[in-house]
Amino acid sequence: MTAALAGFFEKYSLHVGERIRVHWKNMPVEGVIIPQPSQGDILKIKLASGYNTGLDINHISSVEKIPSLKSNHSEKIVEHTLPSSAHVTNRPGFSLIGVGGTIASKVNYETGGVIAQITPDELSEMVPQIKEFAQIKQVVTPFTKMSEDNVPADWIRIAHACYDELIKPDVNGVVVSHGTDTLHYTASALSFMLRNLNKPVVLVGSQRSSDRGSSDSVMNLICSARVAISDIAEVGTCMHATTSDDYCFFSRGTSVRKMHSTRRDAFRSINQLPLLKVWPDGKMEKVSEYHPRSQEKLSLDAVFEENIALIKVFPNMKADVLEYYMSKGCKGFVMEATGLGHVHTTNIIPAIQHATQKGIPVFITSQTIYGRVDLNVYTNLRLLQNAGAIGLEDMLAETAYVKLGWVLAHTKEREKVKEMMLTNYAGEITPFSRTDVFLN
Amino acid sequence: MTAALAGFFEKYSLHVGERIRVHWKNMPVEGVIIPQPSQGDILKIKLASGYNTGLDINHISSVEKIPSLKSNHSEKIVEHTLPSSAHVTNRPGFSLIGVGGTIASKVNYETGGVIAQITPDELSEMVPQIKEFAQIKQVVTPFTKMSEDNVPADWIRIAHACYDELIKPDVNGVVVSHGTDTLHYTASALSFMLRNLNKPVVLVGSQRSSDRGSSDSVMNLICSARVAISDIAEVGTCMHATTSDDYCFFSRGTSVRKMHSTRRDAFRSINQLPLLKVWPDGKMEKVSEYHPRSQEKLSLDAVFEENIALIKVFPNMKADVLEYYMSKGCKGFVMEATGLGHVHTTNIIPAIQHATQKGIPVFITSQTIYGRVDLNVYTNLRLLQNAGAIGLEDMLAETAYVKLGWVLAHTKEREKVKEMMLTNYAGEITPFSRTDVFLN
Repeated sequence: MTAALAGFFEKYSLHVGERIRVHWKNMPVEGVIIPQPSQGDILKIKLASGYNTGLDINHISSVEKIPSLKSNHSEKIVEHTLPSSAHVTNRPGFSLIGVGGTIASKVNYETGGVIAQITPDELSEMVPQIKEFAQIKQVVTPFTKMSEDNVPADWIRIAHACYDELIKPDVNGVVVSHGTDTLHYTASALSFMLRNLNKPVVLVGSQRSSDRGSSDSVMNLICSARVAISDIAEVGTCMHATTSDDYCFFSRGTSVRKMHSTRRDAFRSINQLPLLKVWPDGKMEKVSEYHPRSQEKLSLDAVFEENIALIKVFPNMKADVLEYYMSKGCKGFVMEATGLGHVHTTNIIPAIQHATQKGIPVFITSQTIYGRVDLNVYTNLRLLQNAGAIGLEDMLAETAYVKLGWVLAHTKEREKVKEMMLTNYAGEITPFSRTDVFLN
Repeated sequence: MTAALAGFFEKYSLHVGERIRVHWKNMPVEGVIIPQPSQGDILKIKLASGYNTGLDINHISSVEKIPSLKSNHSEKIVEHTLPSSAHVTNRPGFSLIGVGGTIASKVNYETGGVIAQITPDELSEMVPQIKEFAQIKQVVTPFTKMSEDNVPADWIRIAHACYDELIKPDVNGVVVSHGTDTLHYTASALSFMLRNLNKPVVLVGSQRSSDRGSSDSVMNLICSARVAISDIAEVGTCMHATTSDDYCFFSRGTSVRKMHSTRRDAFRSINQLPLLKVWPDGKMEKVSEYHPRSQEKLSLDAVFEENIALIKVFPNMKADVLEYYMSKGCKGFVMEATGLGHVHTTNIIPAIQHATQKGIPVFITSQTIYGRVDLNVYTNLRLLQNAGAIGLEDMLAETAYVKLGWVLAHTKEREKVKEMMLTNYAGEITPFSRTDVFLN
């Protein structure tokens, strides 16, 4: 703590754990004082939202203490007593694969930050409700990371772990607990890497760490377990559908996207409806057609060509960045273009033509997020198409990136790559656009 | 036309303009035959949506002709007789600045594509309703482009054109007709370049070309003219609020984004509510607080540092692309990170640290589109912050890119750049997150 900050604490007789209201930059801000990291003249408080914030004390004009409210749910830190072993029952079994993320995290009160430190075993014990209807057959931890640090090799490790569990006769499905930041990238990867899928693969995360009373992890885990023993054979994410603790969406892994940085209902199906609504009590409502559980023989196709790039187009972007990637041996591009699939005609199209001449495929998605690209509508788009660019219909840019890495690990032959990219392997392309799924 | 396609036309006695239903890849597809470009065995038809599509005749299993319906609105090509001069009235005046885009486009029936060829003068004559309540004082055409080809120099040209009109006493506001793909980038640029704005600046486009019966251009133009003579002094976009021709949203230029590739209601305010609902009959409903028309003295601050980059982070992205941009003299970065602002800890953070050491600022936004970044929550985010990265609150990535170019044209001093980026110039940052604006 700096001398100035220590003086500030002394001046107002402040203590960690006290609730205060301050005027900061002339705005009222209310929160609970948390342990102060030793960086600058910054007062750290926990807001009602559950997040911490830092306020420069030089911009604080008044401080008022507020008596603590008993049983204030949002401030309660949940403590768990964790039995050490799994229970054996006759209920349908599934396996839990834990790879880290907020769902397996606690607040570190030394730094004020959040770190991954709950084991999947502890996680399963934190949700005793699951034992009432299902049995966790196996808990597997291939690795533990916050998901922003995941790379394609991790997707391959998760795919192997899923495969190893799914082939067990007494395992009805798997739940993968995972960080939310790249949950949808992993969901796409598993959608392509697990072929002839015959059981459910449910990716779950939480937007608030599991040691917080307001965490979404418990309901997400319960609903995930419900899906893992259900009749659906799809890879998808199971996360809060609303900001209330009422039900979850199980959304197809290739069409889902994290659409908000903090909300518990951040995961939304794009250009499609979710597959299921799932309530913690086991009620399920089918929202879209899906592949049912089957006797198909699961196969593992966990390969990835890493030397590819996802590039968001911006005004004034020049061709040189594409040329740079090509000089580094880039094997394929996914461009996040504007609108129906546009890029700058004279700045970018020549580089796409150059890539095409070198046999490097260039695929087009849209930064509008919603909707479909169509390289036939405008004259400029025809120039783009003539340069060799290939529109990916209504596939998400993130899904296209993952799919391209997977496809290029099978073939580098441009026409074959194009054919595979335009083949619908896991619901990543819809044949016709629905009108009821915009901002849904 | 290829021999095979000619044979197909002959086999079914098909003619341009006829409505047909075919089975293509076992799906029924219905549309009107349009003139066929000479590329491959592809049958081109216009769908009910108004868009053209191409069907490989080798995948067509049946063809059925459908009698044309008279007065089918969606197929009607609107023909306009255009008086050559503007009318002089006592109604409040505004100026129309036309820079191209779909709103100024017609279908080119030779190529089947859409090209920009309607002049702003013609455009104003296409909407005679405007003369009932307003007067177009001046029509200006600084240039004409489809908006994917716009570059920062074009934003500067548009800013100058706006300034030149806005300082005229008899001009109450300006309407800028513009392509939709980068309409929101231009709206941001004008928001920063026109300081002490005292009159409305209304950007308008259309998602369907103006010669089509289903075009949204007429209602968008009428509503834009309504806003241009209203009491609001903001830069914003005026586009369909719904898929019906009922009313438009006037949305703040720094918070709006094209969220769908084709829908007429594609332009949505992100993290904020729109400013106004505007009906063509002149009714307006205030939705958010805005700056009213004033006697402030408008100033033009139309400058831009072009050597900057907007980079969307993806799993497995390496530091080298940042280093490449730096080797080319890049003056600043906007990163579109995941979730609360994450990038890969070991792949990307070192390059950000390197940029910081070189005095090159790195700003963080989120690819979730909605929500706010916060570099305090997680341990990995603190590492990012320690490396010098600066979170941009709830600013959109596109707005951040435009703002960074504008700020860097004023100063290259890192702390000053940071201070300006975090200063709210045009509603691009909101102090607290609203809960009622997600997917709105």
